[in-house]
Amino acid sequence: MRHALEFLQPYFLGPSAENAQVFEALLVELVRDHTFWRRNFHPEDGPSIRTSAEHTGSYVEFMDRMKTELYGLSAELKRAVPFFHPRYIGHMNADLLLPGLLAGMTTMLYNPNNVSEEAAPVTLDKELEVGRQLARMFGFSLDETSGPCAWGHLTSGGTVANYEALWNFRSVKFHGVALKAAAATQAFDPPDVGPRTKALSAYSTWELLNLPLSSIVDLRRAVARAYRAERGDGAFGAFAAAVRSERIESLGTAGFFMRHRDLKPPCLMVPASAHYSWEKAMKVLGFGTANLIKVDVDAHMRLDITSLRAALAEARAATVPVLGVVGVLGTTEFGTIDPIDEILSCREAFRADGGDFGIHVDAAWGGYLASMFRQPDGSMRPRDAMRERFEHFPSPQVYGAMAALAQVDSITVDPHKMGYVPYAAGAFVARDRRVVDFLTQKAAYVFDLGDSDQEVPMGQKLRNLGQYILEGSKSGAAAASVYVTHKVLPLHSEGFGHLLEQTVHACEYFYDRVLAMAKRLVDVAHVVVPFEPDANLVCLAINPRGNTDLAEMNRFGRELFADMKVDSTQPLQVKRFITSYTSLLRDNLPDAQAKRVVGEVAIDPASFCVDAGPRPGCADHVFILRHTLMNPWVLSERNGKNYIDRYLAYLEDRIRTLVGG
Amino acid sequence: MRHALEFLQPYFLGPSAENAQVFEALLVELVRDHTFWRRNFHPEDGPSIRTSAEHTGSYVEFMDRMKTELYGLSAELKRAVPFFHPRYIGHMNADLLLPGLLAGMTTMLYNPNNVSEEAAPVTLDKELEVGRQLARMFGFSLDETSGPCAWGHLTSGGTVANYEALWNFRSVKFHGVALKAAAATQAFDPPDVGPRTKALSAYSTWELLNLPLSSIVDLRRAVARAYRAERGDGAFGAFAAAVRSERIESLGTAGFFMRHRDLKPPCLMVPASAHYSWEKAMKVLGFGTANLIKVDVDAHMRLDITSLRAALAEARAATVPVLGVVGVLGTTEFGTIDPIDEILSCREAFRADGGDFGIHVDAAWGGYLASMFRQPDGSMRPRDAMRERFEHFPSPQVYGAMAALAQVDSITVDPHKMGYVPYAAGAFVARDRRVVDFLTQKAAYVFDLGDSDQEVPMGQKLRNLGQYILEGSKSGAAAASVYVTHKVLPLHSEGFGHLLEQTVHACEYFYDRVLAMAKRLVDVAHVVVPFEPDANLVCLAINPRGNTDLAEMNRFGRELFADMKVDSTQPLQVKRFITSYTSLLRDNLPDAQAKRVVGEVAIDPASFCVDAGPRPGCADHVFILRHTLMNPWVLSERNGKNYIDRYLAYLEDRIRTLVGG
Repeated sequence: MRHALEFLQPYFLGPSAENAQVFEALLVELVRDHTFWRRNFHPEDGPSIRTSAEHTGSYVEFMDRMKTELYGLSAELKRAVPFFHPRYIGHMNADLLLPGLLAGMTTMLYNPNNVSEEAAPVTLDKELEVGRQLARMFGFSLDETSGPCAWGHLTSGGTVANYEALWNFRSVKFHGVALKAAAATQAFDPPDVGPRTKALSAYSTWELLNLPLSSIVDLRRAVARAYRAERGDGAFGAFAAAVRSERIESLGTAGFFMRHRDLKPPCLMVPASAHYSWEKAMKVLGFGTANLIKVDVDAHMRLDITSLRAALAEARAATVPVLGVVGVLGTTEFGTIDPIDEILSCREAFRADGGDFGIHVDAAWGGYLASMFRQPDGSMRPRDAMRERFEHFPSPQVYGAMAALAQVDSITVDPHKMGYVPYAAGAFVARDRRVVDFLTQKAAYVFDLGDSDQEVPMGQKLRNLGQYILEGSKSGAAAASVYVTHKVLPLHSEGFGHLLEQTVHACEYFYDRVLAMAKRLVDVAHVVVPFEPDANLVCLAINPRGNTDLAEMNRFGRELFADMKVDSTQPLQVKRFITSYTSLLRDNLPDAQAKRVVGEVAIDPASFCVDAGPRPGCADHVFILRHTLMNPWVLSERNGKNYIDRYLAYLEDRIRTLVGG
Repeated sequence: MRHALEFLQPYFLGPSAENAQVFEALLVELVRDHTFWRRNFHPEDGPSIRTSAEHTGSYVEFMDRMKTELYGLSAELKRAVPFFHPRYIGHMNADLLLPGLLAGMTTMLYNPNNVSEEAAPVTLDKELEVGRQLARMFGFSLDETSGPCAWGHLTSGGTVANYEALWNFRSVKFHGVALKAAAATQAFDPPDVGPRTKALSAYSTWELLNLPLSSIVDLRRAVARAYRAERGDGAFGAFAAAVRSERIESLGTAGFFMRHRDLKPPCLMVPASAHYSWEKAMKVLGFGTANLIKVDVDAHMRLDITSLRAALAEARAATVPVLGVVGVLGTTEFGTIDPIDEILSCREAFRADGGDFGIHVDAAWGGYLASMFRQPDGSMRPRDAMRERFEHFPSPQVYGAMAALAQVDSITVDPHKMGYVPYAAGAFVARDRRVVDFLTQKAAYVFDLGDSDQEVPMGQKLRNLGQYILEGSKSGAAAASVYVTHKVLPLHSEGFGHLLEQTVHACEYFYDRVLAMAKRLVDVAHVVVPFEPDANLVCLAINPRGNTDLAEMNRFGRELFADMKVDSTQPLQVKRFITSYTSLLRDNLPDAQAKRVVGEVAIDPASFCVDAGPRPGCADHVFILRHTLMNPWVLSERNGKNYIDRYLAYLEDRIRTLVGG
């Protein structure tokens, strides 16, 4: 099968910098546009630097120092990782899309700071528009007039976006309890509020902890209206202050739980395959890693929904509030996609039982895949129509997960991963922008308790971005980079999705060819794909035939990898291919999966153990090769062979040599 | 006084892009070096994109879309803020230093990810070197063989660096309590450990909460050694796991305080003038804003040391652990510098009383000023030598604060502010890198409890940067930008300090001329500098003569400011000067200061009140103009007048017109 890659020709600078001339011409043009803008801001001022400056000693000396350092850096960067090249099939990196690269480099000259509109009159708008572009891709509503309206913004990366999700969830989760406590201090008890239309005091703590997000938003407003109606606008400031002082954000976690001794600390549920940043998040936000429930994964390395149900039932039985459940859309290590649709079903059932939790999707890696599922008119692309373009993709599970995104509460997605834009550009997107009213830093009496008549319009508020996000000063250049990328390649199947389609083609091709290679190697080694690829990342477990020791298999894997890893002590050109690896930890696998995975490569399951220390031949992890097929040029051919064929031929040869040697 | 600005001529692109040609030539050269590197990675592969591509329909169509968007962006950016120009004297922005701008733009092409060495073999080293460069500027020791050795890294900005400081403090503060609790569960009690050489069980919770950082580091190691000696290396894993499970990071804040019911939640002390990100930090990390003690400021808008002493005594009396005290080196709003030396003295006294706390300096704005105080040989520049270069600077207070930096625990500094490099580049620098052992995410049995014989060398560990910092994926381009800037302009008085000297000259000149202007305006308006500038930021309070109402003064200020603010509805050229403003909140001022500040502009102090709502003429804030004198070209002259003279002439004219009109 030949792949029609022609349409990609203008997208990137290219594996051999084939588009160097057009790139340079545009860059120079945009730089000149900037320089002459400077000259004409107040041309009557004339220059501050003399035209003869370049002949002065200090000028010459500075230029000498600067050039020495810049040339030195440029020389050292020749040891950088050649992400741009199809011989690189390692981490989540590839070439950068030209529109974003040029937009980023150009905007850097203007150096806007997206913390607020005052420092970024142009790029702040772009950032909020990026939030809308991403929201649309996920299927969130952007209707400002009814129902939840989405919003989003950039972060320095997915880790910070994940922190933000928890910060958002906490601010809403405990608000009802604060409202009730504050009302009690003011001897105020509105009679018919909230989803159960009863007195605020009649809501139990458990009920208040388990109201859906939109109910909390409504309750907060209803209580404010009732207070104003009963005691007048003038008295409202005192009530607002009372609510603030009862919030977990004011009291702190320790203080809040000391005041509410019947409450148990909340837990967060993530699949065992989740990124390590979730542990970090639990530490940083003060929730504690002991309250991070790692839900088992299934045979496809996806969150196991039966295990999730069991974990939820356990939390319910122990009256432990569930802060949220995280589904991963494209795990960092394996590229696998959790059943987001089934997490939503679990929540429905949990709600029927009086519980509630937020759902966050960590789509740092896989978020942009959603562009393949979205038609230009904004509707979901039918699965049948998609299936015509692929051999396996999308599985019903993957399709179901993608279709469900529109209903989750928030999503992390990294434009600097599958968005092909420069670092640092992560993003946080939320389904309901009214959450920002729970986050504001300013003690703005009028807004703090939500009286919609007197509110500043949300669109205006968000121009003070620093008030509603974790970070402060932030790059407007990153926003411009992502914005222009999305404008040139809209986030639907005929825009960005068309590009990503090639990465899935590459993955399917790789997968098929690996199976063929495995057959050829049957007498030499066990070569297995431990989890079928959900999109465009493939892992390989390799064990020399006859070996049953996990420690020996891992040693073999590391030796194999040694030639394919980044090694800055050698000239780059020595490397024929560069890949990456990951470790499958015993600790993160249920027994059955652990047994299956090593069993498939004929390893004695007894040698795969949590504490590998004392026993010879044992290991607490399985070393596996990991291939991210982001670079669409891996399918470009030369003499009838594409880069995947060439890589696998190389790999086969290396395996044979190492086993033989 | 004429200022010798010639040396600055090659530093920047320039107010009129005077250095456009040299900039463009270097940029093109560095871009070409990159493109031909691509071409020669594996030249035998040949191109993936055909040379005829540019004539294909899809290529032409994509280029059309891309150019449309890029030209559109470039056009819109003409409404960006002209930070580069000396007519801009508003926020903490100015032109960008050429070395950093070029290094950043160049490195973006290579797109390294500094989360780990594997994705950034070159720039990760640069980032760790930036940490050392900044540490050296602050006077921290970099001796790896004895005593505390500093380290630092970049963050997306000062806000994240501030979060990181609290995260670091917490991880150490509560570790002793966890050690003792874990030992008890193992029926283990080492007899002679810690600074008081006694049994671990004999340390009270209060003692353990109040050990200095280095004592905790030592205690952790001593306990580990004792355990191994008593029970053997094989049993150590169980103890390490027990310690982990007792840590606040595992239990969470709520769980930890439930287990230690005698403990009170810790507080953090900051000056009332501190940035709003400190409130955000208290919320995000779960400490709670109620535990943020805002210490009064003095007449110079610096932390008042008597108030700090009182707050500390109060905490001591109530047995509230003090997590840390934050000193601000260059407040965002006023540029004022807290007495870091006196905070250190307070800690000495507090320690003598059995207490302890971490000291963090938020030098996001003022950190780079330290370069003026550091001689090329690394020693402090004597104050007398500095005084020869200035009229007022540095005051004994400012000098004392700077000299004390070497002894604090950690510092936030933003290269993207006074470091003149592009966004986003903040930094966190810590005096003792052994703190990272308390932060690691991995459950690495060998290292987790510190047995120095078996440890991976610290320098090697830090190459896995993502394990020890708040963020994950991060820009290597930002690291290259800061690194090259510091190489070309070393962080001492003859390098970077020489540049910053001009900003202080500009400020002193501005200050003197304002006093002269105030005299000329004596019959028209009260013009007052409410706090003497500590370095290079000047605020102005202006009240029309005869008015005693704060609300009216604020209205006047806003009207005055209307012509000087960023306004994207008008062509940029309409603006003659652009400044910024700030609000001095009554809530943040002690009574005496509130009275003094408004008294100096003949406002009735009774109209300056915390709750301004109901009373006519009152306000809860004073509107003041704020001038950041970062752009050294403000002193460049044309027809004998520099930009400061011209701005003040303009301002005087506007005041006369508005008062008259």
